[in-house]
Amino acid sequence: VTARQSYALRAEKATHPLTSYLLRLMTLKSSNLCLSADVSTANQLLSLANSLGPAIVVLKTHYDLISNWDYNPSTGTAARLARIARRHGFLIFEDRKFGDIGNTVQLQYTEGTARIVEWANITNVNMVPGKAAVDALAEAGRKWRERKRYELNVGLSADRQRERDGRKASIVSITTVSQHFEPANSPRSGGEDFGEEVLRGIEEAPLERGLLILAQMSSKGNFMNKEYTDACVESARENSDFVMGFIAQESLNRQEDDQFLCMTPGCQLPPAEDEDAEVKGDGKGQQYNTPQKLIGQMGADIIIVGRGIIKAADPIIEAERYRQKGWEAYEERIA
Amino acid sequence: VTARQSYALRAEKATHPLTSYLLRLMTLKSSNLCLSADVSTANQLLSLANSLGPAIVVLKTHYDLISNWDYNPSTGTAARLARIARRHGFLIFEDRKFGDIGNTVQLQYTEGTARIVEWANITNVNMVPGKAAVDALAEAGRKWRERKRYELNVGLSADRQRERDGRKASIVSITTVSQHFEPANSPRSGGEDFGEEVLRGIEEAPLERGLLILAQMSSKGNFMNKEYTDACVESARENSDFVMGFIAQESLNRQEDDQFLCMTPGCQLPPAEDEDAEVKGDGKGQQYNTPQKLIGQMGADIIIVGRGIIKAADPIIEAERYRQKGWEAYEERIA
Ligand SMILES: O=c1cc(CO)n([C@@H]2O[C@H](COP(=O)(O)O)[C@@H](O)[C@H]2O)c(=O)[nH]1
Ligand SMILES: O=c1cc(CO)n([C@@H]2O[C@H](COP(=O)(O)O)[C@@H](O)[C@H]2O)c(=O)[nH]1
Repeated sequence: VTARQSYALRAEKATHPLTSYLLRLMTLKSSNLCLSADVSTANQLLSLANSLGPAIVVLKTHYDLISNWDYNPSTGTAARLARIARRHGFLIFEDRKFGDIGNTVQLQYTEGTARIVEWANITNVNMVPGKAAVDALAEAGRKWRERKRYELNVGLSADRQRERDGRKASIVSITTVSQHFEPANSPRSGGEDFGEEVLRGIEEAPLERGLLILAQMSSKGNFMNKEYTDACVESARENSDFVMGFIAQESLNRQEDDQFLCMTPGCQLPPAEDEDAEVKGDGKGQQYNTPQKLIGQMGADIIIVGRGIIKAADPIIEAERYRQKGWEAYEERIA
Repeated sequence: VTARQSYALRAEKATHPLTSYLLRLMTLKSSNLCLSADVSTANQLLSLANSLGPAIVVLKTHYDLISNWDYNPSTGTAARLARIARRHGFLIFEDRKFGDIGNTVQLQYTEGTARIVEWANITNVNMVPGKAAVDALAEAGRKWRERKRYELNVGLSADRQRERDGRKASIVSITTVSQHFEPANSPRSGGEDFGEEVLRGIEEAPLERGLLILAQMSSKGNFMNKEYTDACVESARENSDFVMGFIAQESLNRQEDDQFLCMTPGCQLPPAEDEDAEVKGDGKGQQYNTPQKLIGQMGADIIIVGRGIIKAADPIIEAERYRQKGWEAYEERIA
């Protein structure tokens, strides 16, 4: 039902501020491309993020594939990635596929060395353990947000007090504020300026966290049936302040007020030299469809592309080709 | 069908050497208890492993809950845990619940900072993405084993050559060999001696890796239906050199030659003071049953207990109570 509405219109209707932000970013960057950065070193990851940043709106990580992931919260891999994300204007999505009892997923999301909630704007859940997995993550996400807001307010008001006292703002709160509020592509970061609208978006968005529910999979013979997928939609509606949408193979917006995103993996283009060639699977169960099919026919909002771009001779050119194909398919769809 | 057979008998029939080893270990230690060590620091983990080691046959980790997990392969948390495991005689099971396309799970199992395959004797998979997830992990496990055997042979023959040459054995190969071959409870480690049989087992077992398929869950309203569970059994039979069994709520051995283990979470005892009290869930979707029910009636082989033991006033006494209840239920079952 939402497939023919523009991203811009849906941005206004979305209940989740990060969804709204992302839809505006897509409009501004003319991109519905998410890079699946499945590489094995931090350097490869950061250099891909830097070079493909302008073409994408989301960068998807599997942090646990990176052999030298640095867990330091202020100088490590996630912090460096976040700086690149703010510069180019994209969100970070850790594809963790949480899939356990409520108590365990809460701890996995917020604790451990990885502390995913601290750096990933978006993460996802496999709801097969039951709806409690989503409820538990939503609860953890809400708590995190409240704590951050509180810390930020404390930091800001301490700074205001210091300013009134004629002293410099504290380093702690400057770090906090600039970490969260550095405008994407602000003059000082040297990128293009995407305009006031995104700047305003960025000011709100980074304090938000969002969840995608794995409602359908791209892999051959998977066991996500209609009953499961329907329950995912139900659960998303029940937690619409935290759930942004789905990882799915088709749009799952069934009612006018469903404003969920559909992000779709299993996407490849035939080679540029032979655009009519058939796209095959990876021999390990992965199945592929083209951007035209996924965005144009299935109502996907964002295509997730990994090896199609990463293994290309020139990933920059290839990312641009995917961005363009994805965007064309969207424009035709809403025309 | 296997529920009335003794662990010792099944040890002889099992196709997977690690299953066989584990069943002998259970017989020797009179224990069918797996500790779910869901704590948040490495010290808590290692100290639990040390104090409860004598009562358990498997220690289950969520390495990603440990805030100061040290990833160093020879001096880090996993290496220290492995030493304790060899001393007390238990296997390490990382409850990672891999649940992605084949290509991704292979990388997650073998790469990244965690390198789970290097230290976890057992891990598990959520097969919802399709059977390819199991096939892919089995392939990665087989490759790992071949490489280790090769390295070990190279190390051993290099050492033999050095001995013939009158030189000392190389440090590298000594490390490799002792890492894998330190006999459980050998005199030098100071523990009890569990006898020749386990020593022989240990000599073979640590070069093995095994997988459990998440076939049924303990959590309320989970989506693992009969069709899915049946497919898990099929997949286990197809990969019986790598799949040791299931995480399930009941034995899934349906044929005489099914020699799979059933490890069962969602287990708690009523308090010792009031053994008739009802056991409630955790308020986040977890559901509990007693060892008597799970082992005695449902045919489970090993109970997995987390908070029931960890949060007890005295975890050592409580672990011993669970061990005893679990073992009694088993003895009654085979009687
Ligand atoms: O159903 C799914 C869900 C996901 C993401 O949640 N994925 C992930 O997308 C990426 C696809 O990569 P590829 O384009 O190289 O096949 C991988 O990271 C894979 O783990 C899939 O491939 N299929
Ligand atoms: O169906 C399952 C599967 C698993 C393990 O694969 N688990 C895990 O067992 C443990 C149970 O802990 P508890 O005894 O404290 O409830 C947790 O680590 C949880 O993640 C479950 O609780 N239920």
